Amino acid sequence: MGASVANDGPGGKVPVGVLGARGKVGTEVCKAVEAADDLELVAQVDQDDEIDALVTSGARVVVDFTHPDVVMDNLEFCIDHGIHAVVGTTGFDEGRLETLRGWLGCSPGTGVLIAPNFSIGAILMMRFAAVAAPFYESVEVVELHHPTKADAPSGTARRTAELIAAARREAGSAPIPDATSTGLDGARGADVEGIRVHGLRIRGMVAHQEVILGGVGETLTIRHDSMDRASFTPGVLTGVRGIADHPGLTVGLEHFLDLD
Amino acid sequence: MGASVANDGPGGKVPVGVLGARGKVGTEVCKAVEAADDLELVAQVDQDDEIDALVTSGARVVVDFTHPDVVMDNLEFCIDHGIHAVVGTTGFDEGRLETLRGWLGCSPGTGVLIAPNFSIGAILMMRFAAVAAPFYESVEVVELHHPTKADAPSGTARRTAELIAAARREAGSAPIPDATSTGLDGARGADVEGIRVHGLRIRGMVAHQEVILGGVGETLTIRHDSMDRASFTPGVLTGVRGIADHPGLTVGLEHFLDLD
Amino acid sequence: MGASVANDGPGGKVPVGVLGARGKVGTEVCKAVEAADDLELVAQVDQDDEIDALVTSGARVVVDFTHPDVVMDNLEFCIDHGIHAVVGTTGFDEGRLETLRGWLGCSPGTGVLIAPNFSIGAILMMRFAAVAAPFYESVEVVELHHPTKADAPSGTARRTAELIAAARREAGSAPIPDATSTGLDGARGADVEGIRVHGLRIRGMVAHQEVILGGVGETLTIRHDSMDRASFTPGVLTGVRGIADHPGLTVGLEHFLDLD
Amino acid sequence: MGASVANDGPGGKVPVGVLGARGKVGTEVCKAVEAADDLELVAQVDQDDEIDALVTSGARVVVDFTHPDVVMDNLEFCIDHGIHAVVGTTGFDEGRLETLRGWLGCSPGTGVLIAPNFSIGAILMMRFAAVAAPFYESVEVVELHHPTKADAPSGTARRTAELIAAARREAGSAPIPDATSTGLDGARGADVEGIRVHGLRIRGMVAHQEVILGGVGETLTIRHDSMDRASFTPGVLTGVRGIADHPGLTVGLEHFLDLD
Repeated sequence: MGASVANDGPGGKVPVGVLGARGKVGTEVCKAVEAADDLELVAQVDQDDEIDALVTSGARVVVDFTHPDVVMDNLEFCIDHGIHAVVGTTGFDEGRLETLRGWLGCSPGTGVLIAPNFSIGAILMMRFAAVAAPFYESVEVVELHHPTKADAPSGTARRTAELIAAARREAGSAPIPDATSTGLDGARGADVEGIRVHGLRIRGMVAHQEVILGGVGETLTIRHDSMDRASFTPGVLTGVRGIADHPGLTVGLEHFLDLD
Repeated sequence: MGASVANDGPGGKVPVGVLGARGKVGTEVCKAVEAADDLELVAQVDQDDEIDALVTSGARVVVDFTHPDVVMDNLEFCIDHGIHAVVGTTGFDEGRLETLRGWLGCSPGTGVLIAPNFSIGAILMMRFAAVAAPFYESVEVVELHHPTKADAPSGTARRTAELIAAARREAGSAPIPDATSTGLDGARGADVEGIRVHGLRIRGMVAHQEVILGGVGETLTIRHDSMDRASFTPGVLTGVRGIADHPGLTVGLEHFLDLD
Repeated sequence: MGASVANDGPGGKVPVGVLGARGKVGTEVCKAVEAADDLELVAQVDQDDEIDALVTSGARVVVDFTHPDVVMDNLEFCIDHGIHAVVGTTGFDEGRLETLRGWLGCSPGTGVLIAPNFSIGAILMMRFAAVAAPFYESVEVVELHHPTKADAPSGTARRTAELIAAARREAGSAPIPDATSTGLDGARGADVEGIRVHGLRIRGMVAHQEVILGGVGETLTIRHDSMDRASFTPGVLTGVRGIADHPGLTVGLEHFLDLD
Repeated sequence: MGASVANDGPGGKVPVGVLGARGKVGTEVCKAVEAADDLELVAQVDQDDEIDALVTSGARVVVDFTHPDVVMDNLEFCIDHGIHAVVGTTGFDEGRLETLRGWLGCSPGTGVLIAPNFSIGAILMMRFAAVAAPFYESVEVVELHHPTKADAPSGTARRTAELIAAARREAGSAPIPDATSTGLDGARGADVEGIRVHGLRIRGMVAHQEVILGGVGETLTIRHDSMDRASFTPGVLTGVRGIADHPGLTVGLEHFLDLD
């Protein structure tokens, strides 16, 4: 899957800039760009640096892991200068997306990807779960994380359950069978739109999730194990490599993956 | 997913006939048809019975789990009478498929589904594995069966590996990394077109398979557990319900599943 | 592990009688005894049969899967005649056990095994979980059953959690870490003496349980999958083979297993 | 499990020295000792430091992760000065162990623990596998590691298979059933003393192993996932805390764990 960004830099490599380059995530992104044969890291910009470095360095694509307070200014600058942007910063509501669409309307060849989740494995798990759900009578979600996590269930587990519930509604699936009539509070997990979700907190775990589907005589299990924070970097690079082929605004990395 | 076969019988149920009705598989099919709210079992035909019963009973769809020696005669009869057929009998080569296409050309509204595998879980596992494979550096297949199985690896595991290999070739994936330089014969499993496949034989197991994919810091696992022979019946019913919408010849149940 | 019952029948096989021989469980026990090289099925007794058949047939060991209403009469008869008994019938309270001890005091060479659970896998899982628990900061229990089960969590899961809690108390383990401060009701499962227990109900599942333990950088998982009701028969045969070496009353099959 | 070393330092903490303190492993050990409430890190010694620091600092226990070339000198020094030693350095053969026994004979209160594996999870997995193996007809081992590993199967997997084979021999277990008559080379894994062992190499994996045991209608799975190199430190601390109660030479951390 070679780079398809048109205006390559010297040596055929795509010149990439990183905003938030000294943050925890930005540091990993810089390392991953440097390690990629088809990309070249030409600018590392953080809080006290001049954003003009993106232009003077000739960056064709910018990766932004900064802060909700500054990301809109960053993106306005990028779009103004025709630089594509791959954005992992949070805090985008419909208003902000509308503003971005307006700016992009004036720069039709430029692409901006806003992605709440860059883990390709998590995206595939959610997609496969939603595709499979209508074929099965039963489906539940189990997520396992380190015990310092504050929320239960995890955001990814809730999102997975919502996508499963939507797929089942659309297919007209019957309610999930459950004869439980006696037991202990909480034994059957949390209810997210009719889908049971269970959260485990175990020292030694990082971020793991399992979707279990079952029908007569068989079960299908889709499991994602994330064992290292660096696991999001292949998703970021997929965004960097695909952004020139997706002008305009895209929300969600799944639109860059060939899943059909 | 209600029945979409047009010419329904009394009460709106699709009238279904079973060929090979007293065989091990046919018996399960009969039970499943009888248990389905939208289907009606109107004919059970086996070796010494008159096949005309299919016509006199008004069957709109026939399920055939018989024998390679008789299945072509059965299908000629069905197509002649405009009865759709869902076929799990083995032994179809390109010559037989060509003959079927010829017969169906004269009966354009009739559908025939030839499926080597009616397990929806196995079909989904293979599909998801092939879709996911290009996104990961590594992928291996592990299958687990009862210890009386004669072949290793299983046919499904070989087929899964072939589909993964094809998907990786098409995507131009790099070779799978493997630094093994010393060890014991067989430790790294069998090689199926570059994909490592491992077969376990364990008393108590029925038919299980796991596809493990891995990239930087994360893994994705797709597992199918078949714990009962009855697990193929939902696939047969999916074929019965979908056949009227698929006139002509279809090979493989996956074409009846909405997987995109 | 050959039979160690002293007074073998002809051909060195231990003569075995079954009480409740025509019940669902008794039928499986009869089959398993007949299939065992070192045992001989000499008497099959059910509701309307004469219990004297146990004596006239020369049974040395009796397996009882009957009913709480009749089991005490059965056992009095066996003990009176010096026949060992392996009992899966439920309903034993401390009063009944005391009565049995009294009867056995008058027949010192005779053994009676009362076992609530004959699944060797379940016994090993509970044992290993309790042994491992003091070495780990975190431990949770997940059980998965068919959706027609009425109670959640399962009795085995509750019992497992109690044994884990007891082992941790005895070792003076610190409380299990859990920073959950926000979330949905039930997401963290049921609380059984401080151990979190999660119950899944999935069509296609039979009876499955997983104990997950975790410490810094590692986890240990012990999983038991019971895919067939016949899985209790090896435990029954272990009881039959070991009973002559355990005169007096034994509660729990674990005392017949060499686990140290 | 509080410290049981007798001569505690100020504040009731056991004074601990580390040899090889600046190595990759030693660094982790230092961190773990410092983080432990009941231990105090009093000396960090590496290549160019004076080993006398162990004495002047008042260390009661020394942890040695150094090199086969220097470890015997280190241990002679420790034993001479009555300092207990917990040793992860490799290269101990029977001759070296005999020498250590000789030195310890002259210092009867001093303990030395030589451990090839400090992962408590790996030790428990091997132990449980060997205990369970005689109760099951079938057993196989699957290990999963990163693709830069040179040997397959892993040393731990081979050792596990050997322990299982020994336990089965001792119990007089029948050969493991396997009807495989046709297939691909390597599909059934490597043969380690009659036990099948399968090695997977997957990017994203660290060090994982699964032992799968099966009997009629049920399976038991014991899985160890090591996701971080720091996972050996709890085992080292267990050695430090238990060494004063184990004077003389001990080989293997399992003897410090209460597993019965």
